Amino acid sequence: MYTLEEIDRILENSARLSTISREPATLYEPLDYMMSIGGKRIRPKLCLLTANLLSDDFRNPLIYPAMALEVFHEFTLIHDDIMDRSDTRRGCPTVYKKWNENVAILSGDVMSILAYKYLAYAPQAVLPQVLDLFTTTAMQVCEGQQYDMDFETQPFITMDDYLSMIGLKTAVLLACSAKMGALIGGASKEACAALYDFGYQLGIAFQITDDYLDTFGNEKVFGKKIGGDIVNNKKTWLLVECLRRAAGEQKQQLEKLLQLGEDRRQEKVEAVRGLYVELGVREAAADAILVYHKKAMDALAASGFDPARTRVLAQFAEELIHREK
Amino acid sequence: MYTLEEIDRILENSARLSTISREPATLYEPLDYMMSIGGKRIRPKLCLLTANLLSDDFRNPLIYPAMALEVFHEFTLIHDDIMDRSDTRRGCPTVYKKWNENVAILSGDVMSILAYKYLAYAPQAVLPQVLDLFTTTAMQVCEGQQYDMDFETQPFITMDDYLSMIGLKTAVLLACSAKMGALIGGASKEACAALYDFGYQLGIAFQITDDYLDTFGNEKVFGKKIGGDIVNNKKTWLLVECLRRAAGEQKQQLEKLLQLGEDRRQEKVEAVRGLYVELGVREAAADAILVYHKKAMDALAASGFDPARTRVLAQFAEELIHREK
Repeated sequence: MYTLEEIDRILENSARLSTISREPATLYEPLDYMMSIGGKRIRPKLCLLTANLLSDDFRNPLIYPAMALEVFHEFTLIHDDIMDRSDTRRGCPTVYKKWNENVAILSGDVMSILAYKYLAYAPQAVLPQVLDLFTTTAMQVCEGQQYDMDFETQPFITMDDYLSMIGLKTAVLLACSAKMGALIGGASKEACAALYDFGYQLGIAFQITDDYLDTFGNEKVFGKKIGGDIVNNKKTWLLVECLRRAAGEQKQQLEKLLQLGEDRRQEKVEAVRGLYVELGVREAAADAILVYHKKAMDALAASGFDPARTRVLAQFAEELIHREK
Repeated sequence: MYTLEEIDRILENSARLSTISREPATLYEPLDYMMSIGGKRIRPKLCLLTANLLSDDFRNPLIYPAMALEVFHEFTLIHDDIMDRSDTRRGCPTVYKKWNENVAILSGDVMSILAYKYLAYAPQAVLPQVLDLFTTTAMQVCEGQQYDMDFETQPFITMDDYLSMIGLKTAVLLACSAKMGALIGGASKEACAALYDFGYQLGIAFQITDDYLDTFGNEKVFGKKIGGDIVNNKKTWLLVECLRRAAGEQKQQLEKLLQLGEDRRQEKVEAVRGLYVELGVREAAADAILVYHKKAMDALAASGFDPARTRVLAQFAEELIHREK
C-alpha cells in the first residue's frame, strides 16, 4: 500500500503529462496556468487510493484516467469563475481575469475534451463503464452548477435543496473519483458501489467544511479573504441553516444584512458571523461535517476491504475535513 | 442503399433522442431549443452515409454516435455565438441572446458532455478508435476557433493560414463524421483514411461556399443578412484572396473600407463586393470550391467502394456545395 505522501509524489510527477505545450499558445497556455497554480489534486488522489486497495500496480494507464478527473475539475473552475465573475482563485488571478472571457470559455472547452483523451487510457475491458460513470457525473456537475446559480435569486432554499445541489455540484465528482479507481482496479460491483457512497458522503462533508472555512477559517492559511460567501449571499450550509433557524427579530436582522452591499462588507461579514454563532449555526455545521464523515467511514467499512488496507483512505478523509484551507 | 431523403427521415426521427426533458429546465431548455431551430444535420448525415457503404443495418447504436457529431457541433455554435457576440443564428436568437451568457456557457458545456454520452453507444470493439478520432477532432475544432479569433486582430493572413484555420475549425469535423461511419461499419483502415480525406476536402469546399454565400448569396434563402462577414472584417476566403491580389490604389481602397464601421454598413458591403468582382476574387472562389470538391471526389474514388454505392455520397457532396444557404 502506498502512503499519502507517496501518492502525492506520483501525482506531482504526472503533472507533467497534463501540461501540454501545443499550438495555438493562446489556447493551451491557460491550461498550463491552471494546472500550475496549485490545487490539492483531491480527485485523482482519491482515484489512486481506491485503486490501491486492489493493487500496488500503478502503471501509466491508471494515472491518465485519474488525471482526467483533475483536468475536468479545472475546466469546471475556469467556467465557474466566468459565470461568477471571480477575479481570484487560490490567491492568483482567474483565467477569466488574467486573459479574458473568450479565452476562458475556449480553454475551458478544450480542457473538458482533454479529460476524455486521458480517460480513454482506461483498460478496454472497463472503458464503457468508466465512460458511463464519468459522463453521468460530468452532466450532474453541470446540473449542480445550474442549481447553484438558480438559487442565487431565490430568497430561501431548504436544507434538502442545498444538499441536493452540493450533491450534484461537488459530491458526485468525489464519488466518481473513488469509484473509478475501484472500477479500474477490478473491484466487485458491491465494493464499487460502497466506495462511490464513501466518496459521495465525503464530498458532502468536504463542501460543508469549505462553507465553514470561508466564514470561520484562518485567512492566512485559507488563501483568500474570509467572508466572501457572506458578501455574495451565497447559499452555503451556514446561511441555509441560519435562514431556517432565524425567527422574529433575528430573521429581520438577517434579511437586512443580506441587503448590504460591497461597501459595507466588513460590517456585513462580522454581523452575519455573529448571527451564525448566536443561533448555534457554527456548532451545527461542525456537527454536520462529522455526521457526513461518519457516513463516509461507514460506507468505507461496507466496501469489504481489510481495515489495514482502508487505513490510508480513512486518513485521507480525516485530513480533508480537518484541513485549514 | 438508402437515398438522401431516407437518411433525412431517419435523422428526423432520431432528433427526439437528442431533445431531453431533464432537470433543471434552465440547463436543458437551451439544448432543446438549439436542436429545434433547424440545421442541416450534415455531420450525422455524412456518418450514416459512409456507414451505409458497408451495410443497410442502421440499428440504434449507430444513430447515437452519428447524433453525437450534431450535438458536439451545436455546442460549438452556442459557445462561438458568445465569443462572437452574435445575436442571431439560422434567423433565430442565439442561446446567448435568448437567455444570457451564463446559460449559454453552461448549456454548451453540458452539450459537449452529452456528445460523449451518445458516442459511447459505438460498438465496443471500435470504441477506443471512435473515441480517439472524436476527441482528437474536438480538440482541433477548438484550436481552429482560437486561430479564427487570433486572426481577427491580424491585418493580414496568408491563404495557407486561412486553409489551416478552416481545416481545423470546420473540415476536420466533416472528416471525422465521414470516418466515423466507416469505422463503425467496419471498413478497412485504408477505406477509413480515404473517407476521412473525402470529408476533409468536402469540408474545405463547404466553408469556402459558406464564405461565398455570405457575400454573394440570396438573402431570402440564406436566412441572414448578406455581407455580415464583410461588416465584421472576417478573414474569409474572399477577403484573404482579395488582400493577396490587391495592390496600389485598390489596396489603399480596401484598407480604407476595412476601417468603416456599422454605421456605413451598406456602403462597405457594396464596395468590398465590388472589389471582389473587380479583382476576380468572386470567380476564383467559385473555382476553388470546385477544386476542393474534385479532391473530395478523388478521395471518394480512392476509398475502393463501387461507384454504384458511392453515388449517394457524391450526390450529397454536390448538394453541399451547390446549396443556396
